[in-house]
Amino acid sequence: MKPKLQIFKIGGGIIDNESDLLEFVRLFAEITGPKILVHGGGKGASEMMKSLGIAPQMVNGRRITDAATLDLVTMFYAGKTNKQIVVALQNRGVNALGLSGADGNLIRATKRPVREIDYGFVGDLSEASVNTALIHQFLALGLTLVFSPINHDGHGQLLNTNADTVAASIAKALSNQYAVSLHFCFEKRGVLTHVNNDNSIIPEINLSYYAELKQSGVIADGMLPKLENAFDALQFGVEKVIIEHALHINDSLKTTLCLT
Amino acid sequence: MKPKLQIFKIGGGIIDNESDLLEFVRLFAEITGPKILVHGGGKGASEMMKSLGIAPQMVNGRRITDAATLDLVTMFYAGKTNKQIVVALQNRGVNALGLSGADGNLIRATKRPVREIDYGFVGDLSEASVNTALIHQFLALGLTLVFSPINHDGHGQLLNTNADTVAASIAKALSNQYAVSLHFCFEKRGVLTHVNNDNSIIPEINLSYYAELKQSGVIADGMLPKLENAFDALQFGVEKVIIEHALHINDSLKTTLCLT
Repeated sequence: MKPKLQIFKIGGGIIDNESDLLEFVRLFAEITGPKILVHGGGKGASEMMKSLGIAPQMVNGRRITDAATLDLVTMFYAGKTNKQIVVALQNRGVNALGLSGADGNLIRATKRPVREIDYGFVGDLSEASVNTALIHQFLALGLTLVFSPINHDGHGQLLNTNADTVAASIAKALSNQYAVSLHFCFEKRGVLTHVNNDNSIIPEINLSYYAELKQSGVIADGMLPKLENAFDALQFGVEKVIIEHALHINDSLKTTLCLT
Repeated sequence: MKPKLQIFKIGGGIIDNESDLLEFVRLFAEITGPKILVHGGGKGASEMMKSLGIAPQMVNGRRITDAATLDLVTMFYAGKTNKQIVVALQNRGVNALGLSGADGNLIRATKRPVREIDYGFVGDLSEASVNTALIHQFLALGLTLVFSPINHDGHGQLLNTNADTVAASIAKALSNQYAVSLHFCFEKRGVLTHVNNDNSIIPEINLSYYAELKQSGVIADGMLPKLENAFDALQFGVEKVIIEHALHINDSLKTTLCLT
């Protein structure tokens, strides 16, 4: 039987609120066994850019990462947020190791090709991008890995990447060796039939139900790419994908995704 | 016989100039065997603080680290500078792992007690602060460790520390297991009898010659704490301490310090 591995992803909604982040860390520290945390960025980088008079460039809700922006998100995500989480985990007795994909050549991304939009220093990645051997060795040392979404191309260039994709790529890459559960944490208790009613959680969604929910428009907007990512991971061999609230990771109210 | 380990420390003078930093990385990549790099910070953090309207506080040439300053130096040192070096080393085929002392609980510092001056979130450390077991395991994996001077107290607080002290503390702590050479790199070719004449390098300084040079005033100012650190490391069991130019680490013009 494969050993269990739990991978959690948290985003800006939790990171932007320090007391929420510390509460998540407290809950995450209670989880036993090998675990990995992937964090996105928060609003801090954009706010600092504004203070510095650099206007954040967005196209279709996506940040365009020019050289100045890459510098700032590297500082914020790989510096401030990453170390903030690591130091809080250490305080909870978890031996956390903060990482970017450049560290240990753990994740190599490819600069997104310019088509209609030039996203700048943004990286795309897949399960093949992940250095599973070294992650396995780190986990074997009892370390809890904390990934920022800053990766590199192997040729001296850092690249900003989507944290959901980082988490899914690590999960897929390690699914050969581990029974992986992948947890997408956000500010809702799961996938909801009514977005403003936290009691409308759908406990389980399989592929055919997912198709139905898409067609009826119950799942839309930001939830769509998250679930596409999730079902892709399941099809690749990830054992379980869970959508849950970052501040309720240890209770049973959540949405579990499965193939059949 | 103990295995060799080379520890290099670079400071702001090299970090502030990107082409110098890349040239140092090129030279450092050529060094064979286990190696560790400790970097300080540059002027970038202070410059960004000025842009943000935060006045850097200095007392006797030392930065006072309040909460806002700690945030900024963490971003700069552990984020930008650290990842800039790691990505450049990866590009040179060196499997670099960027670290703060909080990562893997590698270095625990103690907040400097308030006496005449309150230095704020500044940490002091010694050889006892260093998690030698994990550093040894990382080196055994073939990783080149790149330390920023941001450490933690183990209770959730990051602390800004002196990079010379970080390098010396790691060197001392590992001197039981390794034949350590400790390289303090800066913008001069070594200890000079005439500070503006690069041809006046003193090739070797032992403890009694050091006393002489101090008394005659040849060694003064910033060089004094560096050499105190250096002789302290030698007395602790570090095999060799070298003072050299960061852009000439692979030639023979340098100052070697020894006890007798």
